[in-house]
Formats: sequence, structure tokens, C-alpha cells
Amino acid sequence: MSAYFDKLTQAIETNRSHLCLGLDLEPEKMPAGIWRDTDGYVNFGRRIIEATTDLVCAYKPNLAFYETMGGAGFTTLRHVLEAIPETIPIIADGKRGDIGNTSRAYARALFDRLGFDAATVNPYLGYDSLEPFLEYSDCGCYVLCLTSNPGAADFQIPHALYLAVAGRASEWNRNGNIGLVVGATQPDRIAEVRGVAPDLPFLIPGVGAQGGDLEASVRAAANARPDRGFIINASRSILYASSGEDFIAVARAEAQKFRAAIENALSAVA
Amino acid sequence: MSAYFDKLTQAIETNRSHLCLGLDLEPEKMPAGIWRDTDGYVNFGRRIIEATTDLVCAYKPNLAFYETMGGAGFTTLRHVLEAIPETIPIIADGKRGDIGNTSRAYARALFDRLGFDAATVNPYLGYDSLEPFLEYSDCGCYVLCLTSNPGAADFQIPHALYLAVAGRASEWNRNGNIGLVVGATQPDRIAEVRGVAPDLPFLIPGVGAQGGDLEASVRAAANARPDRGFIINASRSILYASSGEDFIAVARAEAQKFRAAIENALSAVA
Repeated sequence: MSAYFDKLTQAIETNRSHLCLGLDLEPEKMPAGIWRDTDGYVNFGRRIIEATTDLVCAYKPNLAFYETMGGAGFTTLRHVLEAIPETIPIIADGKRGDIGNTSRAYARALFDRLGFDAATVNPYLGYDSLEPFLEYSDCGCYVLCLTSNPGAADFQIPHALYLAVAGRASEWNRNGNIGLVVGATQPDRIAEVRGVAPDLPFLIPGVGAQGGDLEASVRAAANARPDRGFIINASRSILYASSGEDFIAVARAEAQKFRAAIENALSAVA
Repeated sequence: MSAYFDKLTQAIETNRSHLCLGLDLEPEKMPAGIWRDTDGYVNFGRRIIEATTDLVCAYKPNLAFYETMGGAGFTTLRHVLEAIPETIPIIADGKRGDIGNTSRAYARALFDRLGFDAATVNPYLGYDSLEPFLEYSDCGCYVLCLTSNPGAADFQIPHALYLAVAGRASEWNRNGNIGLVVGATQPDRIAEVRGVAPDLPFLIPGVGAQGGDLEASVRAAANARPDRGFIINASRSILYASSGEDFIAVARAEAQKFRAAIENALSAVA
């Protein structure tokens, strides 16, 4: 198992949490009292982190929201990440993927430059597009498999592409550092993916704002790994639970509720 | 037809060129006399542009190479892009794709913040991941279809996924702003894609350093559109044709040669 999954398992055990908190800073959603400039976003991000470090197993900034900030995005991201304790792993959600030569540049940008522990990657370009990420054997690499959005029905589901991806990803897991992104919006298909990839850890988005079924997802995803084979992401439903000045207390309460709901669902499985 | 494809057609006609030049600035490949720092990369990029504005129909920076520069990447990219005349369209090669909400942030970053005329996008997440890009009806949107790398055989070719992508992309082309990325390494498959998507313009990578067949690709791709339905990208084979201080003259000569080879192949078709 890679250093990333060791660190993740440790965080899961320490915080008794399978909750991955998405750090998606959206200017138009900032609560009262937060300035809509990069200082404000950094302030918001750091306060959210400080209020949740004992409640989550990982943080996952989606790079798109930082890129919309233009040149200030990189610095904003860096300053937000600084607030995350060494013990909690950080996943870069960028869904990158390009031909080998170019994917190498992306992997360097995320793992060397920004110090992420893991990254999401898009499998459309096949093995040589993922290899430069997988070569960072200490880092994790979550391959998009079945996404949580309506568009999953366009290419992933016809011809069972998501099961092909799950199968090949299992074969490619020589360094023990591959995971799969499997959305919560279709729990029956999570069970199918679990059938094809019994050992791969899942990153499950789509439970919060997107309305996926938490209990059914946990039931379908849980396995016997020490980390129980999954983490569940929530972003908007926690970060922006209150638009008032009480946003920190409300976000913390939401994270506690979400963590408890996951652990309850998991204890019903075990 | 979108403003982007109008502008592209104009540039093709003015410069009598279907050559798209990839602006992939790789620090380790910089020629003699160029400093390996951001000033050096900007200098290199701008001089390459100044030496080729009468020879190309488009420029295409791959974002990965700028992201590896860390915080300086955004500024470097911006300063390089400033050297491109208004008349030549610029394609952001980032292969982005995420759920709708997040793809919107990517589209904003590329079209509003950085002022690109077009972008490459990854279709794995389906229609709602592309829609935010397509809504910029003045901008172009090249959907990955059949890529030029070995990994195309992993998911694109089994079950003819690339043909499914070409077919759906044709249906989604309400704003006339969709193109397809179709690699030159498999010309027979370019012909198949042309069969499924007779009207969509192709962005064809893979001819230069990757060894694709130029004549066969042009034969398979050319159609009756005013832009003839394709542009061909080359990056490394032109940018780094010489590692000496003559690199500008050599790059210009290579671009001339490449442009002539494409136009010759095209005249053999017509």
C-alpha cells in the first residue's frame, strides 16, 4: 500500500471519519463577513479547515475554483493548503489526463510543486496518460470511473465503460496507489464496481448537494481494508451551510452530522 | 458557425496555412542563449511567435507546461499570449472536464480570465461537463475523440467509444462551435470519424514528434468546409528543432516546411 493510503487510513482511524471535505471556494457563495477577494477566500478556507481538522480524513480542493481567480489562484491555493495539518492528506481534484509527456508535467505541478498527497485523473487517454501519476508511488491516484453527474449516462454507462475502467485500473495497481472515483448517485452501480475491483479504495462524491444515497453507497462500497475501502466527499453542503456570520459553527456542525451519518451507516454494514 | 471558426478560417486563408503551432514551453528543452527562468521562457515563447505569425493558423499552448512553473506559470502564459496578433486564434489545450458547476469555473478561467478563443475538453463526464464551454458560442470547443497516444487503445477503441463521442458531439453542435481532437497516428480511424461527423472540424495532433502520417491524415480529414475541416498541430518538432542559438531561424524554416507539406497534401486531395 502506498504512503498516501497509509496516511489516509491513519487519519480515518484517528478522527473516526470517512469524510473528505471539498475545499471548493466559490466567490459568489462566500458568507457574510468574508471579503470577496483573495484575502477573503484564504481567510474563509483557513477558518473552515481549522474548524474541521478533527472531523475529516482528507481535504480535496477542486482546482477549477482556484483557476477562475486568475494569477492569484495559485497563491490562494497555497495559503489555504498551509493551514492543513501534516496528518491529514490532501487530494488535488483536477481530473487531469494528457499524453505521457504532458501528464508528467501535470503530475509534477501537483505532487512536486504543490505537495498534494493524491490527485484525481481522467482515464480517457488510457494507461500512458496515468502512468506519470502512478510512478509517484507515495502518492494516490483516483481514476474517474463512474461520476455523479447526469452526463455519466452519455459515455460511461453505455457499453459499461465504467466497469472496463475499474477492471483495467485494478490491473494497473502495481504500486498499490490507485483508487476510483465512484459517484453516490447510483448505488447499484457502486456495487457492480466493487465486484470488479474488490480491493480498490473509492472516493465517493455526490452525496451532499447532488442528492446521492449515503447508506446505500456505504453498503455497496465498504470492504475489509483497514480504511474500509472508501471515503465520501462533501463540499458545498458543508462549506456554505450558512450564509451568515455563524458560518464556521454551522459548517462544523454539518461536518459532525455528516461524519456521524457515515460512521452509522458503516457500523450497520459491519 | 461560431466567431472562433470564422476567425480560424480567416487565418487559414490569410496565411495559407493549416498549421497550428503548440506553444509547449519545456524548461529542459530550452535552446542555447535562453535563460531557464520565467523571463527566459517568455522571451523564447514571444520570439517563436514573432517568427511564425505569417505561417500558422492558430497557436495552442498546453496548460500543463505552464502549471509546472508554479505561481509564475499564469504570468508566463499571459506574457506569451500577449505576443499573438488579434488575427490568430489561440486554443487552450487543457483537456478539462468536470461536473457542470465545476466545468463552468474552468470555462470562465480560460475564456474570460485568459481570453482564449477555444479550448480542448475531455468528454468522459458527458454532456453537462461540456455544456458550460459550449455556451460560450463565440468560442470553440475541441472534444477529445481519438487521441494520438498508445493509450487510445485502452478505452477509446474498444467498443468504438471514439465513434460514439464523434456521433454525440455532432448532435450537440447547436452553436456550431464544436470540433474534435483526432490523432494522426491512425489515419484509417480518422476516415471513420469523418464518416460519423462529416461537418465537424478536426484538430489533429501527433504528426510531428509522434510520427503520424501527414498525407493520409489530410486525405482522411479534409472536407468541403471553407476551412477544409481540419488543422494540424506540431509543437516539439518545430519549437526545439535546433538547440543552438540559431533556434529562431530553424524553427521558422521547420514551420515553413510543415506548412508546405500540409498544403501540398491538401492540394493532392482537392
